[in-house]
Amino acid sequence: MDITHIEHLGIAVKSLDEAIPYYEKVLGFKCYNIEEVADQKVRTAFFRVGQTKIELLEPTSEDSTIAKFIEKRGEGIHHLAFATNGVADALAEVEAKGIRLIDKAPRRGAEGLNIAFLHPKSTIGVLTELCEDPNKK
Amino acid sequence: MDITHIEHLGIAVKSLDEAIPYYEKVLGFKCYNIEEVADQKVRTAFFRVGQTKIELLEPTSEDSTIAKFIEKRGEGIHHLAFATNGVADALAEVEAKGIRLIDKAPRRGAEGLNIAFLHPKSTIGVLTELCEDPNKK
Repeated sequence: MDITHIEHLGIAVKSLDEAIPYYEKVLGFKCYNIEEVADQKVRTAFFRVGQTKIELLEPTSEDSTIAKFIEKRGEGIHHLAFATNGVADALAEVEAKGIRLIDKAPRRGAEGLNIAFLHPKSTIGVLTELCEDPNKK
Repeated sequence: MDITHIEHLGIAVKSLDEAIPYYEKVLGFKCYNIEEVADQKVRTAFFRVGQTKIELLEPTSEDSTIAKFIEKRGEGIHHLAFATNGVADALAEVEAKGIRLIDKAPRRGAEGLNIAFLHPKSTIGVLTELCEDPNKK
């Protein structure tokens, strides 16, 4: 497995309009992109913090998994995403090591990344995403 | 505020002995330090992932805040720590902006860092730590 760094941290929030001012005015980050990911029923806002991005996730529908997460656990950190040089190879490797996959194959996520999620029951409670940037290949 | 990067991500686990093999054998990281932080009633294990560390937190007592976190929410991401060039100044700045502090002044954390926590009720659900490395001054 060739994880290079933490690509981003996904944080569930009820409202981007309420959360962005905290990240900008209190922590001093700059929101550089807002993007809707229709198939995940979220609106996302991105900030760079060194090598890693913070991705705020606002549900756009009551049946969004992010809406359900917030209902059950409140706002907070939702997932941890690692940058790899190849998601398909990384998925095959972790599956061979007994990890349960949510996504059997990479799919397109926010910011044009190829992504796949591992199941938190296999990853000691941390919903884990593997990413690759196809433009870096 | 002069946050340079994500210093570490704190992850609550029931057992380091069970969690370390996942981080080493599945994700391919190397545990480079195990340290007990007596006043927080935890044993910690550290891994480097690019610019950021992963800090696993195992409770050493049933009344550890980490034990209570796991009992209430299960294992998973516990806090997000930002590297700053000065924790005392950063605390004064965020307090002036209306953020509620857990630590009114910096204290000594794992790995010799000066640290302070902000209250998650002020930080949109994310238990947030500010850190500085006194050896870098």
